[in-house]
Amino acid sequence: MDIQTYLKDYLKQSDEFLEKFFADKKKETAAISPIVLDITKRLENFTKGGKRVRGGLIKLGYECCGGKDQKAVLEVSIAIELFQSFFLIHDDIIDRADFRRNFPTIHRQYEKQHHQKRLLGDRNHYGLSMAMILGDIASFWGYEILSKSKFPPAVANRAINHMIEVLTKTGYGEILDVFSGFTGKFSKNEVLKIHELKAAWYTIIGPLQQGAILAGADQKKLDAIATYGLPLGIAYQLQDDILGIYGDKKTLGKALCSDVQEGKNTLLITEALKRANPTQRKFLEKVWGNPKATKKDLNKIRKIFEETGSLAYSQKMLDKLIIEAKQQIEKITPDQKQQALLADLTDFVIHRKK
Amino acid sequence: MDIQTYLKDYLKQSDEFLEKFFADKKKETAAISPIVLDITKRLENFTKGGKRVRGGLIKLGYECCGGKDQKAVLEVSIAIELFQSFFLIHDDIIDRADFRRNFPTIHRQYEKQHHQKRLLGDRNHYGLSMAMILGDIASFWGYEILSKSKFPPAVANRAINHMIEVLTKTGYGEILDVFSGFTGKFSKNEVLKIHELKAAWYTIIGPLQQGAILAGADQKKLDAIATYGLPLGIAYQLQDDILGIYGDKKTLGKALCSDVQEGKNTLLITEALKRANPTQRKFLEKVWGNPKATKKDLNKIRKIFEETGSLAYSQKMLDKLIIEAKQQIEKITPDQKQQALLADLTDFVIHRKK
Repeated sequence: MDIQTYLKDYLKQSDEFLEKFFADKKKETAAISPIVLDITKRLENFTKGGKRVRGGLIKLGYECCGGKDQKAVLEVSIAIELFQSFFLIHDDIIDRADFRRNFPTIHRQYEKQHHQKRLLGDRNHYGLSMAMILGDIASFWGYEILSKSKFPPAVANRAINHMIEVLTKTGYGEILDVFSGFTGKFSKNEVLKIHELKAAWYTIIGPLQQGAILAGADQKKLDAIATYGLPLGIAYQLQDDILGIYGDKKTLGKALCSDVQEGKNTLLITEALKRANPTQRKFLEKVWGNPKATKKDLNKIRKIFEETGSLAYSQKMLDKLIIEAKQQIEKITPDQKQQALLADLTDFVIHRKK
Repeated sequence: MDIQTYLKDYLKQSDEFLEKFFADKKKETAAISPIVLDITKRLENFTKGGKRVRGGLIKLGYECCGGKDQKAVLEVSIAIELFQSFFLIHDDIIDRADFRRNFPTIHRQYEKQHHQKRLLGDRNHYGLSMAMILGDIASFWGYEILSKSKFPPAVANRAINHMIEVLTKTGYGEILDVFSGFTGKFSKNEVLKIHELKAAWYTIIGPLQQGAILAGADQKKLDAIATYGLPLGIAYQLQDDILGIYGDKKTLGKALCSDVQEGKNTLLITEALKRANPTQRKFLEKVWGNPKATKKDLNKIRKIFEETGSLAYSQKMLDKLIIEAKQQIEKITPDQKQQALLADLTDFVIHRKK
């Protein structure tokens, strides 16, 4: 089986558990107020619309470390998809994003509701207020799933401790990311630190380790996963940044100009600024982080990233990181089928289109 | 001992544990980046500045149910003070509040930093972005404290489950509160529902039950606490609303006009609108929720609340609720000293000045 099939299977398998979780929540919140039921439905749509890579990697980590109880791991794995909703909803407020997963972002949905229901006060402030609390509630639900885990208490506790550690790292990465976005100056090392915290730990190492812990893995196994996931996670983010500029809007489910308009901290822009001639630099500084940047500007940016060698630099680093990651696979599992899946995951990171 | 002395003692006793927690966090975050260290210091100041009523009530609930390990309960009780920081920081963004605990609110602090460091982009958006993540990180730290609890795993798990339930209720209350603030129409029942979720559960029932669970109490005890805490918590909030209008700015640590300017959902305004004559109603509708409301307006509002009997109505309900709460005390603990503390807590709720 290749990793894409594995993750697609996870998507189907986890559906049942997300369905059940949200069915219960809809009952619970309908009893409180239609407003709280409304947020539940929005959170359900939002959460189900994800790729669920992190949940899938929890299952993979579990199986790589000898875990056998598929139902138990599926049930608890969806917690991270709730945390993902929490992070994305808050992120989208910060980035002032309009679209996510092919739908308007949550704060934009509430701005629309403000208009439809003819509510009072500032429409944008209403959108951000409701979205912020919606994100908070998504995180409570993530913890709830974890805390109701049917794994033995010692295992469940270790898993919760670990998840909190990973969430905290993600929060630190987020602070650095937002801050450096407002300074406009970020070095290669700062960008890579953010990628380490926000992407490697949160997207790759964290989920795989979480699964490993649920299977009862020892610290040595967790360390091996970290050594594999660190280069892979950074590579994942570099590919994300490349897709943000060169990808396809429909496949990505978000506006292509958004990375440019938000002034995202990517290695692409850091390196391009370092290598640019004065005309190119002037253009980049004018356009990167400008909410009014257009598609025409994006095309020009693409060209500059190519001409300066910045795109090639990111791609070369990506290739190197993938090789590094591959060298660690044997330490994680002796099972050849699972080794093949982990190797395939590294290739998937490069070849994915969204 | 009276409850004020009890809570003051708790404030001192818990200092040591907050100190230690933040000393560790400062070490941890200094290793990542000065920016992350900076948020730790701000969170420390913010969290230490609270009255810590909730933490104190965890200790009280623990002792009422026979708990003996003071150190263990103090150590884990500070978690709720981190959750309180999380809620207040997000709340203050939503309410656009300027002051909290005698200092500028966190988002205002970052707006100032934006100016001082001459950062790029929108100053207000920077403030809210940083404050939102700061709040999120405070919640991660709250969970971390809970998850590292030294109570036996089964007790610790039950306590975490319970805390998540309480946080979720608070989140639901917050959604209702924000929503009704934007509709401008809220009935007495809606106001009381919000008070039940946001005040009674979060401030009184939740902390007392949390302590009871740590002491190994059974469901019957928890139910008794709920029957005591529900009227008491609603009374607590009614008093809060009265202080928001008739209190003293310096004692409260926040601007007195803020309830008026935010258009807070209080029984005071709901009842006043119901009882007002056309002139009074017109004035209330113009001023309540108006960010430009002045001290002169506040004085006029005070007068209308008195003239319409709205203030008296709230005070009467408050008195009734306190009597209801007192009748439940015997079911919580047979110990007369602790019964006296719980009785004193009900009086404290009425007589407090902040």
